[in-house]
Amino acid sequence: MKHIVDMLADDTLGRTREDSRFPILVSYMDAFENINLDPNQELMVVENIKGEIIGTMQLSFIQYLTYQGGIRAQLEAVRIHKNQRRTGLGTEMLKWATARAKEKGAHVLQLTTNKKRSDAVRFYEKMGFSCSHEGMKMHL
Amino acid sequence: MKHIVDMLADDTLGRTREDSRFPILVSYMDAFENINLDPNQELMVVENIKGEIIGTMQLSFIQYLTYQGGIRAQLEAVRIHKNQRRTGLGTEMLKWATARAKEKGAHVLQLTTNKKRSDAVRFYEKMGFSCSHEGMKMHL
Repeated sequence: MKHIVDMLADDTLGRTREDSRFPILVSYMDAFENINLDPNQELMVVENIKGEIIGTMQLSFIQYLTYQGGIRAQLEAVRIHKNQRRTGLGTEMLKWATARAKEKGAHVLQLTTNKKRSDAVRFYEKMGFSCSHEGMKMHL
Repeated sequence: MKHIVDMLADDTLGRTREDSRFPILVSYMDAFENINLDPNQELMVVENIKGEIIGTMQLSFIQYLTYQGGIRAQLEAVRIHKNQRRTGLGTEMLKWATARAKEKGAHVLQLTTNKKRSDAVRFYEKMGFSCSHEGMKMHL
């Protein structure tokens, strides 16, 4: 758990909003439990051959009425350990997520990425995503 | 049910992907049942004083680890009956959704809207959303 939160915190935007001190905040543990109990949520980690966690992402399956009652797969919190960037791991993770979304019968795989992350936008475009939509947010 | 699907279909983008013929497709009925059974999903309709359905939207609550284990509220499939547009109903629905998201403890309310819907982008900006993110989609 600490390893996942460390990756979320070790990020340009994440460092201002996460808290990776030990012991880990109860709110992270509660969130982990909620995700675990929900059959529509899949939180993944990637380990290297030594069993160290080097990547994480969360895939959610959301049932809508639109598209004749279709399911969407939504990707969030994709993070790769700083020592593992530019190794092709992100590409492998995205390929896995795409295959998993198809397997679950989703008609679209979607995500939003902050416009400040221009590298990320280019990466996702290379993986087959298109910037067709505005990703609009309102902090409450 | 037919009334909701009619609104989804009566839309520039929706008309190419929905099927509102009667009897309604089983896939819509199954989707409705799945949404109904999921405590993290809320499908809303608005009725006028005569009991006619004049608006619909779907609000999903998604648990993430990010933001110290925060919950996001996500809005999708916002539709208003063609006879009720420009009456302020959309504004009322958005205010309701914002209040509901706060009540459920969400730290952000988010949505994606097709860049072709320039009126919608302006409307959501007026309601307090910002276009901070790219909404990226890959059809599977």
